Amino acid sequence: MASIFPSRRIRRTPFSPGVEAAGVKGYTVYNHMLLATVFDSLEYDCAHLKEHVQVWDVACERQVSIKGPDALRLMKLISPRDMDKMADDQCYYVPTVDQNGGMLNDPVAVKLAADHYWLSLADGDLLQFALGIAIAKGFDVEIVEPDVSPLAVQGPKADELMARVFGEAVRDIRFFRYKRLAFQGVEFVVARSGWSKQGGFEVYVEGADLGMPLWDALFTAGGDLNVRAGCPNAIERIESGLLSYGNDMTRENTPYECGLGKFCNSPEDYIGKAALAEQAANGPARQIRPLVIDGEIPPCLDAWPLYADGLRVGEIGSAIFSPEFGVNAAIGMVGRSHWAPGTVLGVETPAGMRPATVQERFWR
Amino acid sequence: MASIFPSRRIRRTPFSPGVEAAGVKGYTVYNHMLLATVFDSLEYDCAHLKEHVQVWDVACERQVSIKGPDALRLMKLISPRDMDKMADDQCYYVPTVDQNGGMLNDPVAVKLAADHYWLSLADGDLLQFALGIAIAKGFDVEIVEPDVSPLAVQGPKADELMARVFGEAVRDIRFFRYKRLAFQGVEFVVARSGWSKQGGFEVYVEGADLGMPLWDALFTAGGDLNVRAGCPNAIERIESGLLSYGNDMTRENTPYECGLGKFCNSPEDYIGKAALAEQAANGPARQIRPLVIDGEIPPCLDAWPLYADGLRVGEIGSAIFSPEFGVNAAIGMVGRSHWAPGTVLGVETPAGMRPATVQERFWR
Ligand SMILES: Nc1nc2c(c(=O)[nH]1)N[C@@H](CNc1ccc(C(=O)N[C@@H](CCC(=O)O)C(=O)O)cc1)CN2
Ligand SMILES: Nc1nc2c(c(=O)[nH]1)N[C@@H](CNc1ccc(C(=O)N[C@@H](CCC(=O)O)C(=O)O)cc1)CN2
Repeated sequence: MASIFPSRRIRRTPFSPGVEAAGVKGYTVYNHMLLATVFDSLEYDCAHLKEHVQVWDVACERQVSIKGPDALRLMKLISPRDMDKMADDQCYYVPTVDQNGGMLNDPVAVKLAADHYWLSLADGDLLQFALGIAIAKGFDVEIVEPDVSPLAVQGPKADELMARVFGEAVRDIRFFRYKRLAFQGVEFVVARSGWSKQGGFEVYVEGADLGMPLWDALFTAGGDLNVRAGCPNAIERIESGLLSYGNDMTRENTPYECGLGKFCNSPEDYIGKAALAEQAANGPARQIRPLVIDGEIPPCLDAWPLYADGLRVGEIGSAIFSPEFGVNAAIGMVGRSHWAPGTVLGVETPAGMRPATVQERFWR
Repeated sequence: MASIFPSRRIRRTPFSPGVEAAGVKGYTVYNHMLLATVFDSLEYDCAHLKEHVQVWDVACERQVSIKGPDALRLMKLISPRDMDKMADDQCYYVPTVDQNGGMLNDPVAVKLAADHYWLSLADGDLLQFALGIAIAKGFDVEIVEPDVSPLAVQGPKADELMARVFGEAVRDIRFFRYKRLAFQGVEFVVARSGWSKQGGFEVYVEGADLGMPLWDALFTAGGDLNVRAGCPNAIERIESGLLSYGNDMTRENTPYECGLGKFCNSPEDYIGKAALAEQAANGPARQIRPLVIDGEIPPCLDAWPLYADGLRVGEIGSAIFSPEFGVNAAIGMVGRSHWAPGTVLGVETPAGMRPATVQERFWR
């Protein structure tokens, strides 16, 4: 693959010097920003993540800050999830949709105050959607991308490492809750969350200044924990069934199709609610499914069509070999008639047709 | 620089096989899509573009299709430019802004019909802004990203090459106007436009099927014209003063600051108009300027601060050595007190401070 051509538009992060010093080998671009994809090899990075602890530059999970008297009103328009149930220290995984129920993003919402929310974005300028609505409605709300850069600490030793840097209080943070904890005298939002299922935290680093000092402090404190620089790992996230907007779902899909129906519980008249009513009642006609693909597979750069008896019944958006489970693990969108576990379909890869079997569940 | 890690989210284009066969060496990501940045070397690509003709995969200039009874109403809300003056076969360069006059994108608008427009985007999901407004206003309009992939033919021999493939009629297309011309029986919008000042056309290829056939037809027809695969060239576009959203301006800037005030002539009450009134009357406090930087400079990956007497007076967003003019050509945003041609400022590059002199005009 060709190399990535740098420019100001493809933004660096406060942690880029650390990422580069750690020998990053691959990048993607996410929210107009660099995101590392591999350091040693995907396989090595994955195995290390499952055994030790990693520090991830996920500054590209940019925040949309929604602040002001109408912040909650706006959130209730764009969130299918019941915002009134959200605790003051809570994070909510929120599929956001258009008027037809088509997914626009799947951010993590962070409640900072009754009149202040962050949306921690997947790849896409959801800021522009929120802004368009707020302007057209005349809402009294400020919508900006603040200078906030999440840093994730992931892996089984994450609690130990974070306790050494932020204090024992980190251990009491519950899943998708946060505490404000100080580093060098400055308080950051520290949440138990992250784009892996190996456990860990995300620190929302406000301002670029303390980015590298925090990065360095984590590496100094974690020497004996075998801490390494890492990044969201394609193998681990596919095994875990963590969806990636743009890979596994697009605006063509609804939250119900993505298996995110449980997050559509708002009693408010949110955008897309009417369009989703039918799927809320009867379920979607296709849905995200784990699949196993036989044989050798190339990198998945396009949607790979799924066929049964010559008819297209779905597609695969992510696929990779899992060393731990010894299979090609894949995430697909599969039609109802063919989504039962054990169903064998054909998947058209650039290397030819391969058998693909629907699984009962993801690998963790 | 590390290599780019492929995935479905970083979309390939209908022309990717041609780009790869031509030996692309560098990529950027633009609107979630691959965009080639260099084939031979930036210098060689640039010199060739100025002498011959190139075919560019600019599929990443994604279209926002705005169609329906309220299409013009929506366009009038988001366009600072007078939409009533737009001819039926015209393309408009349109800075789009938020309620504070901050730039959200600088697309090329294409009028397909009285009730149907395309916005050909710079890097950013302006679709989500248009959608948010349309939903909140209850407009009767359909907003989608259609399967349309622009292919540019640029350079002094572009008229000759295009005439051989689309017929002599291409020669009569005026600047920023278009004709519907057939290739293999299918009509495409063919406009005289493109992100260089070497002259040429953009073909809005609808559907992926005819992408590679058109690519191949252009190379077959242009053998004796020394046609090559190319891409927007960083050197040529900086010499030409063609702005790049995310590099030279962001939401922090207004159209007046970008020198795009002449495009803000709408009599309608468009979004941001009130906020721009002051700058419309008195001019902006800072503005885009060409600059020459002395000495050797590294690639410009960040905004480089400009100083005068120890005070920050602006910044540079793009800079590169121009072989043709024998200088480091740069695009900066410079405060009014220091923007007079001949003013010598200091620019802080990662390689140290360098003198930077404000120029009278861009190089073409
Ligand atoms: N800051 C933060 N921002 C993010 C991500 C993140 O990772 N953290 N990831 C991307 C958004 N997408 C997801 C997808 C899955 C999850 C996730 O963690 N899901 C859990 C738990 C969801 C829940 O129970 O609420 C699951 O099991 O599906 C979080 C964000 C981009 N933005
Ligand atoms: N399809 C198309 N789409 C595009 C671009 C393009 O290139 N063509 N380029 C990007 C948008 N930005 C620009 C910037 C400059 C010009 C441009 O061409 N400007 C001329 C002429 C403007 C005019 O007179 O209207 C100038 O001299 O400044 C066009 C699009 C992305 N989308």
